[in-house]
Amino acid sequence: MAEHTVTMESTLKKLLEEKKYATLKDVLVTMNPADVAAIFEEIADERLPRLFRLLPKEQAAETFVEMEPEQQEMLIRGFSDAELREVIEELYVDDAVDLVEEMPANVVKRILAQADPQMRKEINDLLRYPENSAGSIMTTEYVSLRPKMTVAEAITRIRRTGVDKETIYTCYVTEGSKLIGTVSVKDLLLSTDDSTPILKIMDENVISVSTLTDQEEVAQMLSKYNFLALPVVDTDGRMVGIITFDDAMDVLVEETTEDIEKMAGMLPSEKSYLRSNAWDLFKHRIPWLALLMVSATFTGMIITGFESALAAQVALTAFIPMLMDTGGNSGSQASVTVIRALSLGELEFSDAPKVIWKEIQTAVLCGIALATLCFAKIMLVDRLLLGNTDITVLTAFVVCFTMALTVLMAKIVGCSLPMGAKKLGFDPAVMASPFITTIVDALSLLVYFAIASALLAMNIWQNSRAVLLRRKAARRKAFWLFAIL
Amino acid sequence: MAEHTVTMESTLKKLLEEKKYATLKDVLVTMNPADVAAIFEEIADERLPRLFRLLPKEQAAETFVEMEPEQQEMLIRGFSDAELREVIEELYVDDAVDLVEEMPANVVKRILAQADPQMRKEINDLLRYPENSAGSIMTTEYVSLRPKMTVAEAITRIRRTGVDKETIYTCYVTEGSKLIGTVSVKDLLLSTDDSTPILKIMDENVISVSTLTDQEEVAQMLSKYNFLALPVVDTDGRMVGIITFDDAMDVLVEETTEDIEKMAGMLPSEKSYLRSNAWDLFKHRIPWLALLMVSATFTGMIITGFESALAAQVALTAFIPMLMDTGGNSGSQASVTVIRALSLGELEFSDAPKVIWKEIQTAVLCGIALATLCFAKIMLVDRLLLGNTDITVLTAFVVCFTMALTVLMAKIVGCSLPMGAKKLGFDPAVMASPFITTIVDALSLLVYFAIASALLAMNIWQNSRAVLLRRKAARRKAFWLFAIL
Repeated sequence: MAEHTVTMESTLKKLLEEKKYATLKDVLVTMNPADVAAIFEEIADERLPRLFRLLPKEQAAETFVEMEPEQQEMLIRGFSDAELREVIEELYVDDAVDLVEEMPANVVKRILAQADPQMRKEINDLLRYPENSAGSIMTTEYVSLRPKMTVAEAITRIRRTGVDKETIYTCYVTEGSKLIGTVSVKDLLLSTDDSTPILKIMDENVISVSTLTDQEEVAQMLSKYNFLALPVVDTDGRMVGIITFDDAMDVLVEETTEDIEKMAGMLPSEKSYLRSNAWDLFKHRIPWLALLMVSATFTGMIITGFESALAAQVALTAFIPMLMDTGGNSGSQASVTVIRALSLGELEFSDAPKVIWKEIQTAVLCGIALATLCFAKIMLVDRLLLGNTDITVLTAFVVCFTMALTVLMAKIVGCSLPMGAKKLGFDPAVMASPFITTIVDALSLLVYFAIASALLAMNIWQNSRAVLLRRKAARRKAFWLFAIL
Repeated sequence: MAEHTVTMESTLKKLLEEKKYATLKDVLVTMNPADVAAIFEEIADERLPRLFRLLPKEQAAETFVEMEPEQQEMLIRGFSDAELREVIEELYVDDAVDLVEEMPANVVKRILAQADPQMRKEINDLLRYPENSAGSIMTTEYVSLRPKMTVAEAITRIRRTGVDKETIYTCYVTEGSKLIGTVSVKDLLLSTDDSTPILKIMDENVISVSTLTDQEEVAQMLSKYNFLALPVVDTDGRMVGIITFDDAMDVLVEETTEDIEKMAGMLPSEKSYLRSNAWDLFKHRIPWLALLMVSATFTGMIITGFESALAAQVALTAFIPMLMDTGGNSGSQASVTVIRALSLGELEFSDAPKVIWKEIQTAVLCGIALATLCFAKIMLVDRLLLGNTDITVLTAFVVCFTMALTVLMAKIVGCSLPMGAKKLGFDPAVMASPFITTIVDALSLLVYFAIASALLAMNIWQNSRAVLLRRKAARRKAFWLFAIL
């Protein structure tokens, strides 16, 4: 598809340059609005309004909805009042609300001035719902039926009013504006008797959300129940709108992107990557980078505190990156798995003991495997192959033992923090790799030096004289090396 | 909703224990199949088949589809042949295929034996498509219309054949099994003249996928075009099936989870977290952990290579974790952003120069900000507050300069590797934090020591005598400390 769009694009650009508007129009009308929008975005210049006017009314509105805010604003500024009114008339209310939310104040003023009074009222009503709530993404254009209508009457009503509804396939049965049931067009069409009252065939087990339900929960419910749309009711059980599956899909993708951004230590951004400039990216990335950098003061303090142990056994330093990285990787495996399961609703806080136990078992398996492999690696690669005689069997043992303990701590910290965050009402996604790495770094260094100090204390005294001499020679060698470089 | 299900569960369990089957049945029929399945999974024991038999035929099949493979197998083993036949009859073909793919061979044999010959043939046909292809997730149950039918005839056909179709809302117009157009039930119902031929009202600009299109691409197309279903055609343009939005939603969620798992250095798993035991988790996590641990040999070698520089300036060691973590975090921010944009189809390989340039700009901004902050931190916290006089202004300068260069390298590596992987046909998601951290670690240590060696070489010679004496005293102090501990 991407290939196809790209080829199309160059053809259309050529047609535009040669001002072959009639041909352009013939080509554009064959295309899906989402593809037209993608091509229009590439041509985003003063020719855009001219191009846009080639589209028939309905396709124009559908294309408009698919475009990025920058191009929408450019178009609106180029529209006459009459043109603007035409586009707004064709919009569904939820799309109009999205548009109003994205545009600067003076553009919003023009939009509201051109909307008919009924739509203006609905837009204003929807704008009042909190961001990311079901109310803020719902549309008020749905088919409502009365329980006493017959199947034939219901079908007639749909045929009469359906043209402006976002979906006609699920109809909502209301009585005094209370939602009492749903009926699908499939049920209506497949009903064998046209005089059956709706009351008889409707599904009374209605699953609905409130206007204040979080949009992510709505999207997950739609996905779980495989519904085309979910009804939204206010606190008194009165039906106020619907949320359709296509909006839910967009919410799912958006919320997942946000989670992924948070997991990588970034503030979530609403703009796509190509639309963000370096300054946008900087603003979203620097807070966590700076915070995590400053918090590395602790790891620095730990190393400084054990400086003397390190000076005596510089070989120990060489293993710090490996221990830290393995700890960080182990921790982020656990945290990311738990965060994803939490955000898919597979885990609750009450599962915490089960999760921690499972992670401990996994950590023991991983720890033993890694420690064994690490011991073999140190003995074969570092000692034999690279001939690093500074590394004794005791050093190897200290490193591998620390490794196993680090993996254990990392997995426990990694699975507990996201669950704890969830319980305390924070977003678990923040408790991912960068944050956990910083904690695990400090823990693993503490363990490393504690074990090293305890086990190597004897050796230090015995070896220090020999080490001193060797180091002195090395330093002299290094000096000459640097001097030459 | 979760709350609601949990309360329901304990009520149902009590009813089951008291063997109040009639009441149980009355309660269960009011519930949505997805919720019934969730409750049945909790009760997964020998009472499951007894409970399942309480459900009416259609609800039973819908509940069955929503259950986990373990419980499905348990149920099938408890079913009589007649019961199994009833459930299979109610399944859509794509769900039957999913089932067959999950069950062990002897269960599959029983399932195929009980399916009617037509369904058995369709299952076998669908099983032949490669995993994750459009063919493997499509269903063959769609409404097809002829172009010469009138609107009234089409509606009659839908009413007659619609009951077994997965969706009736989009109908496919075929001529000699070639797909030539689509028409929605909305178009049919809203058509003012019942004698209009379908040819006149159908949409000829059909967007379809091939049987071999990747399922992720299908899901993204459905989400982009807001379609209820996408038609699948074979290499000759013959229509063979459809993929509906609910399956696409599941694919989106699944593929995103896989991406997230890969980004955190795990092999993707098909089982949910709670269904995986420690051994499963171990198997999916150990390969990357082991590989990355062994590749840390390089960072170890670099440190060993500069051992003498470190021995002379142990203060340098204290900043290794901070530099490594900041590099890792900067790199994973860039890589994760690019990976997500690639998987959403926002970026192509051709955007690489634009992406790299944007990341360089961002890196310069982040690098300057972090280096400045880091310098202030070292001077104020490490030197003044913690009184670490080993750290000179020159050391601080070396650290901050390395920091800025590390951020730059990390961002460039972080954005280039996923794009390169995409170009070479690998999965970009693997090029995320763990992998990039390992590369950036090695690069940053090299830069660190190179700069440190160059700038501090003079100092080493001057200070080495003083350092030696100070170190000796420290070591003696440390020995007594260890002895006491």
